[in-house]
Amino acid sequence: MDMTRYRMTIAYDGTRYAGWQVQPEQITLQGELERAIGKICHSAVRVSSSGRTDAGVHARAQVAHFDLKDPIEPDGIPRALNHFLEPDIRVFEVATVAPDFDARRSATGKQYRYFIWDDAVVPPFLRLYRVHRKRTLDVIAMQEAASRFVGVRDFAAFTANPHRDVESTVRDLRRLDVRRVGHEVCILAEGEGFLYKMVRSLAGFLIRVGEGEQTAKDATEILESKVRTARVPTAQPHGLFLWEVYYHPQGRDSQMRLCNRV
Amino acid sequence: MDMTRYRMTIAYDGTRYAGWQVQPEQITLQGELERAIGKICHSAVRVSSSGRTDAGVHARAQVAHFDLKDPIEPDGIPRALNHFLEPDIRVFEVATVAPDFDARRSATGKQYRYFIWDDAVVPPFLRLYRVHRKRTLDVIAMQEAASRFVGVRDFAAFTANPHRDVESTVRDLRRLDVRRVGHEVCILAEGEGFLYKMVRSLAGFLIRVGEGEQTAKDATEILESKVRTARVPTAQPHGLFLWEVYYHPQGRDSQMRLCNRV
Repeated sequence: MDMTRYRMTIAYDGTRYAGWQVQPEQITLQGELERAIGKICHSAVRVSSSGRTDAGVHARAQVAHFDLKDPIEPDGIPRALNHFLEPDIRVFEVATVAPDFDARRSATGKQYRYFIWDDAVVPPFLRLYRVHRKRTLDVIAMQEAASRFVGVRDFAAFTANPHRDVESTVRDLRRLDVRRVGHEVCILAEGEGFLYKMVRSLAGFLIRVGEGEQTAKDATEILESKVRTARVPTAQPHGLFLWEVYYHPQGRDSQMRLCNRV
Repeated sequence: MDMTRYRMTIAYDGTRYAGWQVQPEQITLQGELERAIGKICHSAVRVSSSGRTDAGVHARAQVAHFDLKDPIEPDGIPRALNHFLEPDIRVFEVATVAPDFDARRSATGKQYRYFIWDDAVVPPFLRLYRVHRKRTLDVIAMQEAASRFVGVRDFAAFTANPHRDVESTVRDLRRLDVRRVGHEVCILAEGEGFLYKMVRSLAGFLIRVGEGEQTAKDATEILESKVRTARVPTAQPHGLFLWEVYYHPQGRDSQMRLCNRV
C-alpha cells in the first residue's frame, strides 16, 4: 500500500497528561495527537515518537512520524491539528519525509533539560515547569559530580528498573552540564539514548549533591556499584523537558520555529 | 485599638480567579489571601490592595496592606501564608509599615505590561500569559500611535464605562512603550493611576494599529472625541500583568525577590 510519511515537531505541557503512550481511559499525548489526525484525515492513524515521555514530563520539541494513505499538503497540517488540540499541545511543524524515516530509530541523539528553582518562593508563572528547592544548590559541586558521568558508562544504578527488558544498561552520555541563571538551575543532558527514568535519576542524585548530601566521589562509587539504591532518588517529572531530538544530517532546520522560553 | 499594619507583595496567575475583589461564591485573590491570613492569626482580617485587577489578569507584584491586633514577626509570614495558598498565588514579602500607609492611597504610580505573541503558534508554556495574534504586528506603527497618548490627557474614550462614578477621566500617562523581543510584543504602560480597563483598552487599540486597521492619526482623533466606540476593543485579560506599584520614596526595596520571568 502506498503511504506518505510525515515528520512532526510537537511541544507540550505534560501537566495534564498520563505521559506519551496511549493507555485506556487516560489522556495521553499520543492519544490526543492520533485523535486530532483522525479528525483531519478521517481514518485511524498511528503516531510514533522518538520515545515515550512519562506522566508530567514536558517537551519543547518532541518528534514523531505518521503515515497517510491519502497525502495532504504538509504546510497546512499544523494549523489544522492545532485547531483540534488543546493549547497545551502544539504542533509546530510537519514535513514529508522518506518512508524509511523513523522518529525513534533514525534519531542520532537527544537533549533533555531539567529545571530547578532554588529560592524561598517559586514565581506562580513557573510553578508547573520548575522543581522547587528552598535551599541554594551548590552548582560547582553538582558540575563536578556531573562530569563523572560523561562518557560510555553502565548506568544500571541510574535507571528506575534495571531488570527491565533492555539488552544493555551501557549508554554514551555526551554532555551533562549544570548551569545557574539567577535562582534557576538547569541540568542539561545529551546523549545517543537514555535508559528508563535515567535523566530524572541523574537529576535526583545531582540535586542531593547540590544540597551537600552526596559528593562527586559518591557519583563514581554508585556508578561502579551498578545497583540502584535509595541514594539515587527519581526527581519529580515537572522539572523535565525533552528539549531536542537530533537527526543527523537532516532535521536541524525543523527547530527554527521553536521557542526557548519554557 | 492598637493595630500593627503590614505591607505585602504578592504575585499571582489570574487564570483561575474571578479577579481581585471578594465576591460571593467566587474564588477571588482578596478572598484567598484573607482566608490564609485568617488561618495564621485566627481572626477575620481585611486585605486592601493598590487596586482591583479584573478576572484573568495577572500580577507580578501586587501590593496590599492589612492590620493585625496581635502582631506577628513579619519575616515568617510569607512562608506561613504560602503554606495555605495555592501555588498560583505567592506572597513574596511582608513588612511592617507606618499605620498611615495605604496600598492604594500611598501609591505614587503603577506599571502594567501587556504581552502579545505574534506567530503562527504560541508555545504551550506561555499559553496562559500571552495573547495570540497570528499576523506579525507592526511595532513601529504601534509605538508611533502610543506616543500620542503620553501626557496628561482625557482618556474617556479608553475606559470601559466612562459614565462610571469617577470624578474625572483625565490621567497622567507617563510612559506607553511598545517593544518586540522575537515573537513577543510587550506594551508597557506607566502612570500615576489608570481608569477602569484603560490599559486593556489602550492595548486593544494598539493591537489594531499593529494589524494596520487603525493609525496614529486615529489615536489622536479618538482621544479628542472622548467617546468610547467599537474602534477601541478591550484586549483579553490574560495578556495583562500588574508589573509594579511605586511608593515614593519607600517600597522600591520590596521588589528584590521578584522575578521578571512571566
